[in-house]
Amino acid sequence: MELAILGAGDVGRSVANLAGEYGHEVVALADSTSAAVDPDGIAVDAVLERKVSGEAIGTDDPEDVFETDYDVLVEVTPTTLGDAEPGFAHVKRALEADRHVVLANKGPVAERYEELRALEAESAGSIRFEATVGGAIPVLSTIEDCTPQAVTAVRGVLNGTANFILTRMAAEGLDYEHVLAEAQDLGVAEADPTFDVDGTDAALKFVILANVLGDGGFALEDATVTGIQDIPGSALDLAAEDGRTIRLIGEATRDGIRVGPRLVPENGALAVTGTRNIVQIETRNAGSLHSSGRGAGGPETATAVLSDVGRLPPL
Amino acid sequence: MELAILGAGDVGRSVANLAGEYGHEVVALADSTSAAVDPDGIAVDAVLERKVSGEAIGTDDPEDVFETDYDVLVEVTPTTLGDAEPGFAHVKRALEADRHVVLANKGPVAERYEELRALEAESAGSIRFEATVGGAIPVLSTIEDCTPQAVTAVRGVLNGTANFILTRMAAEGLDYEHVLAEAQDLGVAEADPTFDVDGTDAALKFVILANVLGDGGFALEDATVTGIQDIPGSALDLAAEDGRTIRLIGEATRDGIRVGPRLVPENGALAVTGTRNIVQIETRNAGSLHSSGRGAGGPETATAVLSDVGRLPPL
Repeated sequence: MELAILGAGDVGRSVANLAGEYGHEVVALADSTSAAVDPDGIAVDAVLERKVSGEAIGTDDPEDVFETDYDVLVEVTPTTLGDAEPGFAHVKRALEADRHVVLANKGPVAERYEELRALEAESAGSIRFEATVGGAIPVLSTIEDCTPQAVTAVRGVLNGTANFILTRMAAEGLDYEHVLAEAQDLGVAEADPTFDVDGTDAALKFVILANVLGDGGFALEDATVTGIQDIPGSALDLAAEDGRTIRLIGEATRDGIRVGPRLVPENGALAVTGTRNIVQIETRNAGSLHSSGRGAGGPETATAVLSDVGRLPPL
Repeated sequence: MELAILGAGDVGRSVANLAGEYGHEVVALADSTSAAVDPDGIAVDAVLERKVSGEAIGTDDPEDVFETDYDVLVEVTPTTLGDAEPGFAHVKRALEADRHVVLANKGPVAERYEELRALEAESAGSIRFEATVGGAIPVLSTIEDCTPQAVTAVRGVLNGTANFILTRMAAEGLDYEHVLAEAQDLGVAEADPTFDVDGTDAALKFVILANVLGDGGFALEDATVTGIQDIPGSALDLAAEDGRTIRLIGEATRDGIRVGPRLVPENGALAVTGTRNIVQIETRNAGSLHSSGRGAGGPETATAVLSDVGRLPPL
């Protein structure tokens, strides 16, 4: 398939880098200020080098991406909340042009799910968004394959930054501020870590899951969310005396979404360590399926994007 | 899709039972002696009742299944080794008639993989076989989605009977014979448990995985296999003193297949308990993906079969 990639951060660049390995061609790559467009395929290595050294990606305008012939719009611009713009508009344009869309951008899928599905129904193109939930872990495709109606709940750890912080607090007996600083030094937490530590990032993912289970009906404002910023080190020490630890756990059912710190058995499935994520998919016919892996990262998330591309029907 | 099911054991009956839930119709169900065939869809409940009460499934002959109009042959007859017959012949007939085939029968896929793929290449139909590896756990579809070339190895616990026995030996300090009897009483081990306890069942699954990774080249005879029958209770006690336990672990790479008992950390990912299975898929771009769940059972395996049916292209 021919891919037009909107977004040249870690994920966008990794998608461009790995596309060839999956048998696809990149005909456009754009960030917010410039673009490289070539119907015969852009020179990926050269374009990525320019981006990484701070130069303009190319001589084209981001608008030019929509003028070009592509099969799949890969929407990997930063997640925005509320109206989920400009991501939503990008998706709308592609679907109205009867093209496919694959998203890593959580905004449109969490905040305006029913509108996306309505646009998809009118389009020859399809939308897929595995990369919005759990990075490399195949969550949405697993739910799709066993049919959403057969899934009763999805639970788990879907934010690696918060999980890393809690893992380190427990392991070293350090306090939150200290470990957050360590996480930022390592690049595990961003300079502004708010959405990771206050539970918003995890909540967006569980909202997406609830929308898939219930075929819409939820947005971020419907989620009950508590973050990890107020957990004292002593809480983890206390938990450890009882063979437990604390993790930021989320749950999505057809009734809603909750995210918050919870006590879990120290050696249990939910006590994943470091930046690892885990989902537990509860099914009616097949018991509980657990999947864990790397929930974030450029290449990791790119594999989810490219896995989606592989599952799109020909246009 | 219209399904013709060959095999009326636990899995075949569960596929017939759940097919409607997934939007499919059962036009034929056969065991080795009789069949129920109806192009408008068989009366599943009535047919299953007859099977379960020991009566003939229907008034048709198993041969009649191939005369009927169907989209997908569901091959869930008992696994046989070597020439993998009669399963292989069933698959061949369906592919030569340009029909799809979905297997839970491991024989043809483990023992005659390249021949299957050659038949598939000449057919309008496709073969899928998620249900041959890991029951309800999405193993092959995960490898397919991230592309086999990106997977370097698959490791894990893929036989629930052996895992149950080892879990119980460790938990209760009982010896192998005692726990095997308990497993048979519970229906977790069969009257003849040989293939489960000598590692053959697990080996077949890892042979299938190696064939997927390497696009053929392996059969059961290529696997290095050791079972659990000779493990004394004292070995587990010794392991426990060191924070370890013993599990029957298999590994498949492009170089081959090994199955045997191994020491693993007591609380590590590979130390799944009871009849649960786990696979660790090592990937080049996305680190290690772990998936665990119920590796066997009628409904569990049926969900894998029906998941495969859902991924077949229209004929």
